[in-house]
Amino acid sequence: MFNAHIRVLLRPSILDPQGKAIQNALHDLGMIGVESVRTGKFIEMHVDAPTAHAAEAVVHQACEKLLANPVTEDYEVVALVPADTADA
Amino acid sequence: MFNAHIRVLLRPSILDPQGKAIQNALHDLGMIGVESVRTGKFIEMHVDAPTAHAAEAVVHQACEKLLANPVTEDYEVVALVPADTADA
Repeated sequence: MFNAHIRVLLRPSILDPQGKAIQNALHDLGMIGVESVRTGKFIEMHVDAPTAHAAEAVVHQACEKLLANPVTEDYEVVALVPADTADA
Repeated sequence: MFNAHIRVLLRPSILDPQGKAIQNALHDLGMIGVESVRTGKFIEMHVDAPTAHAAEAVVHQACEKLLANPVTEDYEVVALVPADTADA
């Protein structure tokens, strides 16, 4: 069993209105030092696979077929560790 | 200028229907090794602050006042680095 952490972000060239709205709200709350905000998805996945290599293949397949829009988003597998040593 | 990476996840005791829907969709696509999926938000923030300590204070304030629901969600600042060395 492996524990994968994935993040999916809009490509830098794509406008992120949600991030802009958060930035404006933070300014209204007094946090004027916040110069930009970009939002994305964070996905934690437990994968039953015999090896880390097999688990990684499943995770990339999941990202490419379902989790990330290949036109507008980039994804990154930020961690892939055996589940018993996963920190969260 | 500092670059902060934040993730916000539902607490483990809270049901995540979006994650369950993703898991079911992945099973339908043939990825039956996926045993659980939890979804959350990923936020990248640029903060103009004189020190890392000051930037960290702004980031925590933003999470507590706006980004995370304190009843149902946990947040974690996974990175806080000077913007010129940030990797993404």
